[in-house]
Amino acid sequence: MSTPFTIALVQMSVPADPTKSVAKAEQFIRRAARQGADVVCLPELFRTPYFCQHEDPDNFNLAEPVPGPTTRLLAATAREEQVVVLASLFERRGPGVHHNTLALLDADGELAGLYRKMHIPDDPGYYEKYYFAPGDTGFKAFTTRFGRIGALVCWDQWFPEAARLTALQGALALVYPTAIGWHPEEKSEYGDEQLEAWVTVQRGHAVANGIYVAAVNRIGHEIPATGGQGIEFWGNSFVAGPMGEILCRGHAKNEEILMARIDPQRVETVRRHWPFLRDRRIDAYDELTRRFLDP
Amino acid sequence: MSTPFTIALVQMSVPADPTKSVAKAEQFIRRAARQGADVVCLPELFRTPYFCQHEDPDNFNLAEPVPGPTTRLLAATAREEQVVVLASLFERRGPGVHHNTLALLDADGELAGLYRKMHIPDDPGYYEKYYFAPGDTGFKAFTTRFGRIGALVCWDQWFPEAARLTALQGALALVYPTAIGWHPEEKSEYGDEQLEAWVTVQRGHAVANGIYVAAVNRIGHEIPATGGQGIEFWGNSFVAGPMGEILCRGHAKNEEILMARIDPQRVETVRRHWPFLRDRRIDAYDELTRRFLDP
Repeated sequence: MSTPFTIALVQMSVPADPTKSVAKAEQFIRRAARQGADVVCLPELFRTPYFCQHEDPDNFNLAEPVPGPTTRLLAATAREEQVVVLASLFERRGPGVHHNTLALLDADGELAGLYRKMHIPDDPGYYEKYYFAPGDTGFKAFTTRFGRIGALVCWDQWFPEAARLTALQGALALVYPTAIGWHPEEKSEYGDEQLEAWVTVQRGHAVANGIYVAAVNRIGHEIPATGGQGIEFWGNSFVAGPMGEILCRGHAKNEEILMARIDPQRVETVRRHWPFLRDRRIDAYDELTRRFLDP
Repeated sequence: MSTPFTIALVQMSVPADPTKSVAKAEQFIRRAARQGADVVCLPELFRTPYFCQHEDPDNFNLAEPVPGPTTRLLAATAREEQVVVLASLFERRGPGVHHNTLALLDADGELAGLYRKMHIPDDPGYYEKYYFAPGDTGFKAFTTRFGRIGALVCWDQWFPEAARLTALQGALALVYPTAIGWHPEEKSEYGDEQLEAWVTVQRGHAVANGIYVAAVNRIGHEIPATGGQGIEFWGNSFVAGPMGEILCRGHAKNEEILMARIDPQRVETVRRHWPFLRDRRIDAYDELTRRFLDP
């Protein structure tokens, strides 16, 4: 069994200039490493403001190859600091083929893995189906220097199937870089229950799989140049343990580094006492590949 | 779209004498009906103390056919009170073939459906694999006079696959008759996190599926004649709404009837705003039928 390691979530706001965002992320990675982090996770699409608030073909200029300039920079930081880095990027894969991609850089700077977001949202203010082709990597866990990590992204967090398929690959922790927030016009009426639902469904994945779950969100109120009320990103990054217990949780408005210990022995103990993986009715799950089971 | 209806959960303790338990359940059904219930749910195996605390071949004498004497009695009550009744029973299906079975009696007293518990637990004090053959009904939602109801039982509540497959059949609410409690020797150290995990994973099903979830548990500290510290059933029956919000929740030690309104329009609204069922990657879920995905 692998030994415990420390995961750090970088909850940050995102400057307009990608060069500044990457520099800021680098500084956070170094600071987290000094604080004892082994694995450092950045928020979803940390390099740019959340451009999916509108459909604009010029935004495809923000994409870059993966591996590419940003992973090269972060790989150097990872190697220097001897930490694993999870970086969520807008990937240009080819003309007209773009993805919302998570790159895992191992502590020696090598690319340990690449996961392309499988579930793509599309609702007012989150027009991701316009920008991102659905991932074709399948769900993935990757071996890193410190332990096996499940790579997922944002909208995936609402889908128990994604959590399960990643957990079944031996991940100790599911990590979800995220960009989620409130529509200001809805916040007073629905804000609390939206945030609570988001935390709850992910804690549910932790319980159902006996696994750690980490969500790392951005903060800041981003109003696009085209106007509107924008999105108030809700922070609240957190790590839950294998019984769904909250180990750390961020503020709605502060930049901060959240740290938690990932202990393989804890996963072992919880799964011994609640052996759900033993009892799954794999003979009866075929229809999970159906859209709907019409009455 | 069907109209809203009221669900009632009967959280009760269970007398040693099955005749008394059934009479008590009947009185609760009548009381719930007077209070405005349309659908009344009894706890798991409400007819007897939780005999699965030990493996004893004589306990098979407690089983009965379904339909059988208890469903006949409850069908009469259902018809008289014009309510749907969900009754969890120890079913004798044939020599050596027993199930943990949920019977749905429609408001006219007809058997609307029968679900045999698919996931069977087995851990200290919950020796169900000894008593119950795994269900062969598959996961099921049933049409009743008041609306479409998903039938599940206890251990199923830890499995997102079960919730999803039942929700996909058009259920408005997933209902889990339950018998779960604390081992007294563990309660002070682990009791709170066990209960919280149980509530959380089910609220997670509500969120992930945009559906109501109802869990109805027994209360009482049952110490078997063979000794030991027994199980302190933790009550805490609850109904969660389609965003995981708690609509009602029972006490750990009181008998009570918990009521909640099931509103199809609320399911519609929540699923419009969070269209998870639209975005499921049904092309990528094949491996959910695998036990483990060995690295």
